[in-house]
Amino acid sequence: MKLSEIAKIIGASFDGEDIEIDSMNTLSDATSNELSFVANSKYVKEIANSKAAAIICDEKTASEVPKESVALVVAAPYWQMAVVSEYFAPPLEDNDAKEAIIGEGSVISPKAEVANGAVIGKNVQIMAGVYVGSNVTIGDNVILYPNVVIYRDCKIGSNCIIHANSTIGSDGFGFATNAQGVHKKIYQNGNVILEDDIEIGSSTTIDRAVFGATLIKKGVRIDNLVQIGHNCEIGEYSVLVAQSGSAGSTKLGRNVVVGGQAAFAGHLEVAPFNTFAARSGITKSIKESGKTFAGFPVMNHREWLKLQVKLARLIK
Amino acid sequence: MKLSEIAKIIGASFDGEDIEIDSMNTLSDATSNELSFVANSKYVKEIANSKAAAIICDEKTASEVPKESVALVVAAPYWQMAVVSEYFAPPLEDNDAKEAIIGEGSVISPKAEVANGAVIGKNVQIMAGVYVGSNVTIGDNVILYPNVVIYRDCKIGSNCIIHANSTIGSDGFGFATNAQGVHKKIYQNGNVILEDDIEIGSSTTIDRAVFGATLIKKGVRIDNLVQIGHNCEIGEYSVLVAQSGSAGSTKLGRNVVVGGQAAFAGHLEVAPFNTFAARSGITKSIKESGKTFAGFPVMNHREWLKLQVKLARLIK
Amino acid sequence: MKLSEIAKIIGASFDGEDIEIDSMNTLSDATSNELSFVANSKYVKEIANSKAAAIICDEKTASEVPKESVALVVAAPYWQMAVVSEYFAPPLEDNDAKEAIIGEGSVISPKAEVANGAVIGKNVQIMAGVYVGSNVTIGDNVILYPNVVIYRDCKIGSNCIIHANSTIGSDGFGFATNAQGVHKKIYQNGNVILEDDIEIGSSTTIDRAVFGATLIKKGVRIDNLVQIGHNCEIGEYSVLVAQSGSAGSTKLGRNVVVGGQAAFAGHLEVAPFNTFAARSGITKSIKESGKTFAGFPVMNHREWLKLQVKLARLIK
Repeated sequence: MKLSEIAKIIGASFDGEDIEIDSMNTLSDATSNELSFVANSKYVKEIANSKAAAIICDEKTASEVPKESVALVVAAPYWQMAVVSEYFAPPLEDNDAKEAIIGEGSVISPKAEVANGAVIGKNVQIMAGVYVGSNVTIGDNVILYPNVVIYRDCKIGSNCIIHANSTIGSDGFGFATNAQGVHKKIYQNGNVILEDDIEIGSSTTIDRAVFGATLIKKGVRIDNLVQIGHNCEIGEYSVLVAQSGSAGSTKLGRNVVVGGQAAFAGHLEVAPFNTFAARSGITKSIKESGKTFAGFPVMNHREWLKLQVKLARLIK
Repeated sequence: MKLSEIAKIIGASFDGEDIEIDSMNTLSDATSNELSFVANSKYVKEIANSKAAAIICDEKTASEVPKESVALVVAAPYWQMAVVSEYFAPPLEDNDAKEAIIGEGSVISPKAEVANGAVIGKNVQIMAGVYVGSNVTIGDNVILYPNVVIYRDCKIGSNCIIHANSTIGSDGFGFATNAQGVHKKIYQNGNVILEDDIEIGSSTTIDRAVFGATLIKKGVRIDNLVQIGHNCEIGEYSVLVAQSGSAGSTKLGRNVVVGGQAAFAGHLEVAPFNTFAARSGITKSIKESGKTFAGFPVMNHREWLKLQVKLARLIK
Repeated sequence: MKLSEIAKIIGASFDGEDIEIDSMNTLSDATSNELSFVANSKYVKEIANSKAAAIICDEKTASEVPKESVALVVAAPYWQMAVVSEYFAPPLEDNDAKEAIIGEGSVISPKAEVANGAVIGKNVQIMAGVYVGSNVTIGDNVILYPNVVIYRDCKIGSNCIIHANSTIGSDGFGFATNAQGVHKKIYQNGNVILEDDIEIGSSTTIDRAVFGATLIKKGVRIDNLVQIGHNCEIGEYSVLVAQSGSAGSTKLGRNVVVGGQAAFAGHLEVAPFNTFAARSGITKSIKESGKTFAGFPVMNHREWLKLQVKLARLIK
């Protein structure tokens, strides 16, 4: 898409050299053929080092945009980013892609759907009612139980098991909201990557990234009815018990254990080898490692036990 | 169904003029060809103004029934209402209805099922494994991702997106229980109405109304794994984050924001423009507007923060 | 499978009489052609009475194994049990089984899949996208709404209703973890049994047992998005409201009422006729009956109300 077209769509003035924009990305990850944006003062400091071809920003921030980038100045950068995101959204299915490639020994139920462009490894079992989207890649020895849905462009490693009715790669919960309270969808043009040796329960939902990937690392175990927001990263061998969840962009280190119904706020970093008791509510990043936490907001598990004793006394 | 038959089924004496009863409804909404009931002293005051053709009630309440209505007197009105509800339940699929009508430019996967009587608008994309029940209406430019299920008689507006494995219109959780602890299903003969411009995540469940409609208003955003009970009403542009839920008959005003894992008790009214932090538990109606709440039971968000400070001191 | 082969796989020395092992089971339930294991000092006292043909154990525990059983001594019994469990896992579908038997008056959507060996009763309605696994038995007058998944070997009684996108019999969340933090799947070779007159909401997940059965007794009502862990037992006429859950091996008595988002830890026993308010967190067995509880950890509901009053005072 031409930069001049984008400028026109969002009502930004533009008279520089026109170039082709391939996609959108964050300030820090954008390359010289990508469009980025800044809509939150927290990210202003990242502008200077951005390699983005162009940056949607407001008037106040325009002076921070490096000379190599084009500043597309608008009144409401987040809203306009949402507007433009739709233009970079691929079609639901890539009908131009080649027929799916199915590896030796793999069994695809005639009641499953494997879209064009998918590449399926060896000895994979895809049961009835499964949907595998365009350009999805799946490794060897994978089992997809009935009615699993893998959205387009996601990547599943080898030796993974996904139980019935789970969804990998649905859109992250992203939108801009204007002064009238109306929401505008931010198209989620990233994907989900599952590394090898992962098992996922039934009716679990893992959202695709807005840009880049939601990443589930090697050996992770996820139970039923778990929610993983867009752009999360779940470290190797971490364990997420049923009905737990994480808001977007949170990163768990390796071997983090998350109890049932526990939940993480967004944009956190959690050090490896921590354990969170059932129904923990984690609202801050955790730098210590090897600890057990409980409560909402979380505290050291022993302190939580002490607190329960104190509360029991309160009612006597 | 003849009123005399209904009387016979529930063992009520009846010797008035026999009439045809079309359906069941609440005391306040019932019309002169509908059956209603009163099973809770809270609703006795609504009897006098009811237009219902007949009212199932106990002996004590019979004298309150207006002259224009027939009192069907039974020992256990709620149980008998449940018994009768089955007779008004339509078949799972309306095989007598005409073949579904599909608008121009709409694409229905051959692996989807669209039942008779459905009316689909223009440029709708219905992906593999989707089920669209009898007499469902769908507006224009709607996307139903794989394995979405829309139960019969529901209405979906234009420009809606529903993600994989979500269910619209499953039965509300309604039953009567007798003295032996045995439950009798109350058939949920209402539907779900989604207005325009709504996006719903994956594995979310929205139950159909027992009578009337569960209503999701224009522009609402619902995340993954959210539960909406029967007869709820979600106001325009409200936002429900993942794993939140509402029990039946609760009404949210416009632009209410509901954090992850937050939940509402049933039969509440919540004023517009309120925000509920993650895991809020709302047990009372909220008349103030534009506030932020947290905790269970909810309090002003600032008070909740203060409480956390106090609790932290308790354990020192 | 020969006992000598098992010994070889897990690296245990074995020079007794070789016998055929049919399956794996717990110490107390194993019969003389089954393999068991002991991996937790809590269960050592059950060894003496075990009828198991052979018991995987560590060196310290070997002397407790009765003379009639073979002790298979390994360094990490739980891990080795997980290793062996895979060998007893049946294939995903039993293609050698006879074609499914469908009772009179039953209607199976051509878009549903009923695997070989299934036995379906009379007047059953199996809607589009449903998957019924090998050797599943279903009673009479059952309704399976679209996209319900019943894993192989599960049993569904008569007069049951299961709403869309629910999963019965997915694998329990079981694995062994070694010193490097790597997980090894414990194959879940049990099943789920639903007795008669049960209704289950949409997107609910009920896991199959590791050994034996997860049991849902007569007349139970389960709402949407509920999680039932492996080997749970839910007593007659119990009611589980939306988004509640139970970890594995917990047993509820009859007519237990579980509020929305409430949850049980694993391995508990809960007496009949108790009620748990929404979001209760139950971490201990409950022997009293007929009470109402609330809070996390749960307390008497009245005490919980008193506690809220005290907490409200704290912030004044």
